[in-house]
This record gives sequence, C-alpha cells and structure tokens, in this order.
Amino acid sequence: MRIILSGFGVVGQSLVKLLESRSDDLYARYGMKPRLVGVIDSGGSAEDRSGLDLNKLMEVKKKYGTVKKYNKTKNSQTGLDLINNLEADVLVEATPSNYKDAEPGMTNITSAMKHGLHVISVNKGPLAIAFPSLMELATYNQVLLRFSGTVGGGTPILDYAKNSLRGERISSFAGILNGTTNYILTNMEKGMSFNEALGDAKKRGYVEADESLDLDGLDAAAKLVILANWIMDLKVTMPDIKRTGIRNVTTSDIKNAAKKNSTIKLIASCDKDLVVEPKEISLDDPLCVNGTLNAISFTSEHSGTQTIIGRGAGGIETGSSILRDLIDIRQEISKL
Amino acid sequence: MRIILSGFGVVGQSLVKLLESRSDDLYARYGMKPRLVGVIDSGGSAEDRSGLDLNKLMEVKKKYGTVKKYNKTKNSQTGLDLINNLEADVLVEATPSNYKDAEPGMTNITSAMKHGLHVISVNKGPLAIAFPSLMELATYNQVLLRFSGTVGGGTPILDYAKNSLRGERISSFAGILNGTTNYILTNMEKGMSFNEALGDAKKRGYVEADESLDLDGLDAAAKLVILANWIMDLKVTMPDIKRTGIRNVTTSDIKNAAKKNSTIKLIASCDKDLVVEPKEISLDDPLCVNGTLNAISFTSEHSGTQTIIGRGAGGIETGSSILRDLIDIRQEISKL
Repeated sequence: MRIILSGFGVVGQSLVKLLESRSDDLYARYGMKPRLVGVIDSGGSAEDRSGLDLNKLMEVKKKYGTVKKYNKTKNSQTGLDLINNLEADVLVEATPSNYKDAEPGMTNITSAMKHGLHVISVNKGPLAIAFPSLMELATYNQVLLRFSGTVGGGTPILDYAKNSLRGERISSFAGILNGTTNYILTNMEKGMSFNEALGDAKKRGYVEADESLDLDGLDAAAKLVILANWIMDLKVTMPDIKRTGIRNVTTSDIKNAAKKNSTIKLIASCDKDLVVEPKEISLDDPLCVNGTLNAISFTSEHSGTQTIIGRGAGGIETGSSILRDLIDIRQEISKL
Repeated sequence: MRIILSGFGVVGQSLVKLLESRSDDLYARYGMKPRLVGVIDSGGSAEDRSGLDLNKLMEVKKKYGTVKKYNKTKNSQTGLDLINNLEADVLVEATPSNYKDAEPGMTNITSAMKHGLHVISVNKGPLAIAFPSLMELATYNQVLLRFSGTVGGGTPILDYAKNSLRGERISSFAGILNGTTNYILTNMEKGMSFNEALGDAKKRGYVEADESLDLDGLDAAAKLVILANWIMDLKVTMPDIKRTGIRNVTTSDIKNAAKKNSTIKLIASCDKDLVVEPKEISLDDPLCVNGTLNAISFTSEHSGTQTIIGRGAGGIETGSSILRDLIDIRQEISKL
C-alpha cells in the first residue's frame, strides 16, 4: 500500500513513527505493508517510489525544518505535482484545518481522488466546507474517503456510532468536541477569569495559532458537520451550524450554574437543529467531563443514551486513527 | 433467516416485539427477513416452519404463561427436541444465567452448534463456564457464536473494543459491569445502610431472583470472563477470577472514601490479574457513574484511556443487541 502524506507536522510525524514501530505487527495481524512513497510539507517534498527511509526522513525534517533536502537531486515538484504524478494508493491529508477556503487540503484531496487515490483526511477544513460534494466525488471516482481522526482524535467516535451501533437508530447526539475550550471552562470553574484561563491554555500549547478556531467554536462546528453527515445522513456544511463561542461566558455565569449543581460547557448538538453554544449541564451528566477531555452522548431508539469519553487530540492518538483508516481501506479493497 | 428462541422472558419477548416493529426497516436496510420458527419456554414450546404469528404468540404467552398452547395439536416435544429436529439457521439462547452447570443454556447451545445452527447467546452462564471450549466447538462446526447482549445490555461494549479499536492494542481495562450493585452503592453514598439500599433495589425489581449473582459479584465476574476472552484473547473461565462482592462494604468505608474525593464501586478489572472487588475510585474518574449505569474504561497503547457509559440492562436494550448480532451473522454469511 503506497502512501503519500501531505502535511508533516505533529500528526504526520506521529504517523511515520507508528508506521515504523508497528510495521511487523501490521503485517502479522492485517497482512499490511504500508509504504510511504511521498511526503509534502510547506517547504517542499520528498519522494521514493520504493519507499522513503523513515529514519532519514525524520532526520532531514529535524535538521532543515522541511523534507525538501531528502532527495539529493534538485526537486522542483510542488506538492500538487507529486500527488498528480507519483503512483500511489492512498493520500493522507494532514495539513492544518482552515474554514475559509480549506486550502491546500481541498485541492490535495480532490486531485488525489481524481487520480484514483483513496483519501484519509485528518484535516477538517475540506470536510466542514464540502462534505456532501466530497463524498459524491469519492463515489464518482470509486475511491474511499475516510476521516476517523477528525472527530475525537484517537477515540473512535465516528466508528462507534456508525458500526458498533449498526441496526440502531440514533435520534440525537450532543458532545464536548473541543478540548481547548473545555480546558478553559474547567479552569474558570476553579476560579480563573477567562483571560487567565486562556493564557494558561496558550502556555500549554493547547490553543490553535488562530485562536478563533477554538474560542469561537469553529473547530467544534466542523466536527459537528462531519458527525451530522456521517451518522445522520444530513447533507450539511458549516453555514448550517448555529454557532456561538465561549468569549462571552463569565465566571459569574459559571457560579450561578454551580448553585444548581450544574456548570457551563461548549456543547455541539444535533437534534432539531445543529448548534454549537455554551450550555448549562448537570455535574451528574456523564457528558460533563473536565480538562481537555472530549465526550459525546448518543441517544438511540432502543438502547438509551450512551456516552463515550476520551482524549480528543494528540499526535500519536490521531496517528493511530489514521492506522485504523488504513486497515479499513485495506479490508474494503480486499473485498472487491 | 429462521430463528429458534429458547427462553421467553423479558428479553425474549422484547426481541419478538422488535422483530415485529422493525421488520420493514430490517428488510430495507439489511435485506433481512428474520422468521421466528420455534420458541421454547419453561412450560413447553411452539413451532411453525413458515414462521410463528408474533401477535398470537404474545397473546398465548400472556394468557397461559407459556407458549405451549400455541399449536393446537398436542406438542410433546421438549425444547431440546425442537432444537434437534426443527430446521433453522440461528438459535437465540435467552434462558436465565446460572454459574453452577449453566443449564439448560449449555445443552441448548452445544446441540444447536452440532446441528449447524449459528448461536446468539444473551445467557452468560455457558460463556462464563466454558468460553474457550464453546468457541472451539463453534469453529469446529463452522458456525458463528455471538453474545453482544451479555455485556452492557444494549451498549455495544464488546464491539467497540474489538472493532472500533481495531489496530489498537488494549493493555488493560476496568469497568462497573453490574447495575444492581452500583445502584446499591450509590444509595449507600447518599446515606442508606446496605440493608436499606438492598431493600430499595429489590422493591424496584433490580435484584436477581438469586441475589448472590449480584451481591457476590458473580454477574460482574461472568462479564469479565467474556471480555477477557473476546478482547484480550485470554483463555479463562469463572475460576480464574478473584472475586469479592459488596456484602462487606459499610457506610463508613464510603464516608472515609468521600473525604478523599472518592467513593467505592464494584470494579471488574483486567490488568495483570482478573479481579472483581469493591475499590475506591476518584469521583472525577469518568468511570465513576451512578445509579444503575454501567461504565468501562479501556486503556490502549496509542489512544489513551477511553470510557463508554450506558445502561447495562433492560429488555428492549438487550433485544436490540440481539438484532445487531443477527445483522452481523447475516453479513458474515453473505461473505461466504
């Protein structure tokens, strides 16, 4: 299985480490021999049709901050050239999410699909902006589009709802899908002001470079779009989400909630409407998790409400979700 | 798909209701036409090769307390005769769990498998006593053995660990797997004595006819056996579990735990050993759920700890897990 990886940040590098450390196990358990043939980062690209040397790749990245110098010959290919010209089976799209034009991820994904590559995206941008049309494009080109890592990091929330609950009908769901804002609200509950809590979260590296993605609920809304499409078969995109972030939540709001044995969390919910907003929830609700944890409660017709809690981010965690998608694609292909 | 159902209590009757109410949906979504051809209860049996009339079946059961009078002709077949003689594809085994000889479930299951029937068991007894040999027997007879409803009721705990976490390596897990004892301990936390809390649970119908199954941790231990075999590939049975129930937990134990922001729960855990025992856990641990809820935390190599919370019992909930197993068997068969 020949893989092109676009985006070589924390998640991309974690994937490479996993491909290295898990290679024997992946072959023994799943008959899978993933081979990384191309890597694209913001500085350039590296390629080797017979498989990149993963140790060398990590060294070059560490030394030069880009993989460009991996190949000795002058490599003037852009990332898109690589996707268009290099023979491969799967594109793993891991460039940063943005919700304006979703580039370069959007073009990477559509180009790859048009060339017959299956796609695994951990980039939420393209899915948030164009989920329904990307799924159509995948179907049209007879390729698979997977995106386990976009919601819940390493916690397989999408798979649980789609597969473990097969045969059930999910009527609604609600979740805490952004760890950063949950960390801030948890600290406000403990007495910090919004600005103190934001400062603390920044110091720990929890906040996106563009803080609006967390604070204004864009990240949570993108995940809600993906869940609504995948699980509820709704054909929606970002503009369909009613969205309010946490900037106006005050410590006195939280104190007032505490008097009712409740607190305030940024909740993404799908019931009649698709909404991301700060909401009061009971401290006894299993959904009420603290710190950077994520949680989601599915309400199903016959099995009541079920809650999944886990870490919602992290390089290795998200890398492990890419491995799951690779296994999934491998198994789907072998059925053909 | 022709089904024989042994055991026609709350779960069996819930399954019949679901087969009735979901029949169009099951056909539309999964191409499945389940047909109940035989039912066995403690009073006798009913059969119809072309499919039992589900409404009539429920009426007869309600009127006479047994399905025996469903067939007008004198029906002297025992349940076992029915399993041995009636052509069918699947046995759903739903007689009560016991951990002494696991009968009549054990003989029902082994007879069915020897006759080439796939088996769905919501009866924990046979699995707790003989999981490894039942799996071997299934393999030998080339039939499928499924048991989603034995752990977590309608909450697909086994499926989550096995399928949604595929590619991950689970290193340990711990769970609250018995709703009755959790209900009792929750009420003791609120100030009731053990006997008051037990009395309240009995009044609500939460306690098994043989209260030892709940109070001495047998039910939790049986679920631990099933989890350990299915998820961790351990070949274990009931005697391998170190087991202590909740009879000796006192309100002062719980008060002392509360001083440390903790409480006492009956925890079934699989780490180095397989243990069921009352343990102190932090009130902030996502595993710490109240009332009759069940919860389980899986610790995986790359994705950290993930917790699933849901109702662990209930007729319709467990019935819905049987539907999932039927869909699963149907899909497995169609691959052949």
